[in-house]
Amino acid sequence: MRLAALREQVLEANLALARSGLAPGTFGNASGIDRGAGVVAIKPSGVSYARLTAGKLVLTDLEGNVVEGELRPSSDLPTHLALYRAWGAIGGVAHTHSEYATTWAQAGRAIPCLGTTHADHYPGPVPITAWLTEEAIAGAYERETGAAIMQALAGMDPAAVPGALVRGHGPFCWGRHALAAAEEAVALEMIAKLAYQTLHLEAAAQPLERGLHEKHFRRKHGPSAYYGQP
Amino acid sequence: MRLAALREQVLEANLALARSGLAPGTFGNASGIDRGAGVVAIKPSGVSYARLTAGKLVLTDLEGNVVEGELRPSSDLPTHLALYRAWGAIGGVAHTHSEYATTWAQAGRAIPCLGTTHADHYPGPVPITAWLTEEAIAGAYERETGAAIMQALAGMDPAAVPGALVRGHGPFCWGRHALAAAEEAVALEMIAKLAYQTLHLEAAAQPLERGLHEKHFRRKHGPSAYYGQP
Amino acid sequence: MRLAALREQVLEANLALARSGLAPGTFGNASGIDRGAGVVAIKPSGVSYARLTAGKLVLTDLEGNVVEGELRPSSDLPTHLALYRAWGAIGGVAHTHSEYATTWAQAGRAIPCLGTTHADHYPGPVPITAWLTEEAIAGAYERETGAAIMQALAGMDPAAVPGALVRGHGPFCWGRHALAAAEEAVALEMIAKLAYQTLHLEAAAQPLERGLHEKHFRRKHGPSAYYGQP
Amino acid sequence: MRLAALREQVLEANLALARSGLAPGTFGNASGIDRGAGVVAIKPSGVSYARLTAGKLVLTDLEGNVVEGELRPSSDLPTHLALYRAWGAIGGVAHTHSEYATTWAQAGRAIPCLGTTHADHYPGPVPITAWLTEEAIAGAYERETGAAIMQALAGMDPAAVPGALVRGHGPFCWGRHALAAAEEAVALEMIAKLAYQTLHLEAAAQPLERGLHEKHFRRKHGPSAYYGQP
Repeated sequence: MRLAALREQVLEANLALARSGLAPGTFGNASGIDRGAGVVAIKPSGVSYARLTAGKLVLTDLEGNVVEGELRPSSDLPTHLALYRAWGAIGGVAHTHSEYATTWAQAGRAIPCLGTTHADHYPGPVPITAWLTEEAIAGAYERETGAAIMQALAGMDPAAVPGALVRGHGPFCWGRHALAAAEEAVALEMIAKLAYQTLHLEAAAQPLERGLHEKHFRRKHGPSAYYGQP
Repeated sequence: MRLAALREQVLEANLALARSGLAPGTFGNASGIDRGAGVVAIKPSGVSYARLTAGKLVLTDLEGNVVEGELRPSSDLPTHLALYRAWGAIGGVAHTHSEYATTWAQAGRAIPCLGTTHADHYPGPVPITAWLTEEAIAGAYERETGAAIMQALAGMDPAAVPGALVRGHGPFCWGRHALAAAEEAVALEMIAKLAYQTLHLEAAAQPLERGLHEKHFRRKHGPSAYYGQP
Repeated sequence: MRLAALREQVLEANLALARSGLAPGTFGNASGIDRGAGVVAIKPSGVSYARLTAGKLVLTDLEGNVVEGELRPSSDLPTHLALYRAWGAIGGVAHTHSEYATTWAQAGRAIPCLGTTHADHYPGPVPITAWLTEEAIAGAYERETGAAIMQALAGMDPAAVPGALVRGHGPFCWGRHALAAAEEAVALEMIAKLAYQTLHLEAAAQPLERGLHEKHFRRKHGPSAYYGQP
Repeated sequence: MRLAALREQVLEANLALARSGLAPGTFGNASGIDRGAGVVAIKPSGVSYARLTAGKLVLTDLEGNVVEGELRPSSDLPTHLALYRAWGAIGGVAHTHSEYATTWAQAGRAIPCLGTTHADHYPGPVPITAWLTEEAIAGAYERETGAAIMQALAGMDPAAVPGALVRGHGPFCWGRHALAAAEEAVALEMIAKLAYQTLHLEAAAQPLERGLHEKHFRRKHGPSAYYGQP
């Protein structure tokens, strides 16, 4: 029963990625976790969004052993699992190759905060991972990708920093559940596009002044938040 | 009865922003005022456009006291109210994070008039606010944002200049009613995109010659206008 | 009866502009002429595409006198008429503020032929008008715009060169009938976007070599054409 | 019976190009081959996608003689046939004027591999043809275009390198069947857009390190592939 609800939400998160244009072809995947059951639901590998159903999602434990499902899980599953194991506060992960976030990842640059749209979502720049070592690439590549993300967030609270760029690859986002993670993927793409365009128009554009940045972040996060409904 | 019509028009204006792609996620909001009743209708905070109904709009007086509605109004309400209190000629306000207008706001630049599409809508550059002071940010931030907009329009007629950029944030537009404000938001995004692209193609592009600018503005505004239906 | 067919085709051409995203808001207009009757059908001024019907189109003679219709014709009518009077071979005209063609017009640059997509449609660069004089702007502005277009095409065959940019304003296209003119407006926008992007990627990009240009133009035009159906 | 299935798949591939926005107007064409029957099905020339049906496709032999169909085949047919004759492993070809791949073709540059999205699809840069000679342009132009593509792939395996840019023109892609070719056209457009944007953001961006490139290519290709379903 509970796992049926997990399947429905993870399906909805995957379809939200596709509807938003963030996951062309079969790229991209969203997952969610039921912490009580210790079960993760994720998109099967290489299946088109048009043919995705709740029943086709793959259920695994936190070590990646398939619990339910006849298809092979997304090849990025070990990255999702590494984040779930390390960060107890998150309940969903979304990975895309969305156009502008991927552009920053390919350019190898963290995204500076150039406006309030960014400040509404991130307390600082959007972090970017270091390059994986040759050993990490040759080894458990997808799990090492998760480790690189955690290293990029060293000293930060993943509940406050909802995403990061994997260098040369693309963005991973997370949130309280699968749908929240997908919404962060949409927001990150918008932030990435605005920053890209801003620097094209004004190469000397400076990061938002600290007071304004914090004002906007705190409108939406923490005890003094007053955005949205109580 | 009259307030029901206000609700309908403000709903339609909000949906027009969403349909035009100017307000991704829950960003953006449109409001309208019934001057006779002294009542403003505005989008509730953080509610998605797909779920918005006329009944969910929040009605307040010009000081922001809720008159009708069970949801919290948009956090940008005090900016809208500041404009309504100062400018008796306007009946609607629309705020978006649309991609190109926000790019100019983040770049910290007023939009120069580089073509007749711009001249059809604005008698000069699209104004941009100054940065708010630390005190203004720490104080009544949203009301101060309204004050900054009014300062950016100092000496101009808000009935002739239908919008401005809030530096580091995004555009606010206004008009005779909520729908007119939303239409100005659409036009401003188009103007912003054309100017962005023009400067990329030709960094030395010059503002439209004054006579041609005025010709186009007067085709659509003032006593000698001959665009549209009488 | 014949005029009813003209109305239908001109309606379809206007809707094609809107569907293709070339005419946001109420910008843009398409017209067609019945040479036998000496009657031009054109979009009314400032009417949204969503509400446009064949019955709302305005019919005029070649001097702009309204023959049928209760609405005011597009303010650009005198430009259309100037082209119809000068060029007997054309049967339709389309004007848009499409994003990339307008960018070139605002940048004040003819579009060089950088690829075969361009060569399929134009035998050389897409021409651009000179600036109108102060007198022309103050006088019969829209008719003078038509004169400037004809001057930009001096020595060229309007049946072979299906469009031009009006400097600081946007594109005008034409063809055998209204729908053909609208299709040329779509093609010109694509050509304009490709050229814009090509120069961004490679500032030193050179015009297509003459032999390849002519090969492509002649695949589609003239006695040796072999593109499309006989 | 078998040819009916070929028609259906080639129709679907052509419609996929149109749906993906890769083939505006009547540009672009997809074909497929039934190797047993020695029959190729291709889009007719200059027919809009909206009016395309399986019955309108043209069937030819490998020399271009029409076997079934009343319309003229795509003028690019000889390019498709040249590839089918030379490369026994391919079963479908797709040609588009998609915006970003065509931009690279017009700029005259092979696409460097700047991220894993590219590495997922190509083992190296996306190749670009040399300019055709005057003789080749004046001669069997479309067949010579096929020869130029083969030359650009000299020493490569067309089963592993699924596309190339024709200099000054646009992309050709191929695959095991018509739909696979169309999917490669979609992927190439995405790769082209990401690379274009990456170089705009970071002119000094470097090709992906070899180990990471190979890791991603081998996740999807060859004996050790583990992406997708078995």
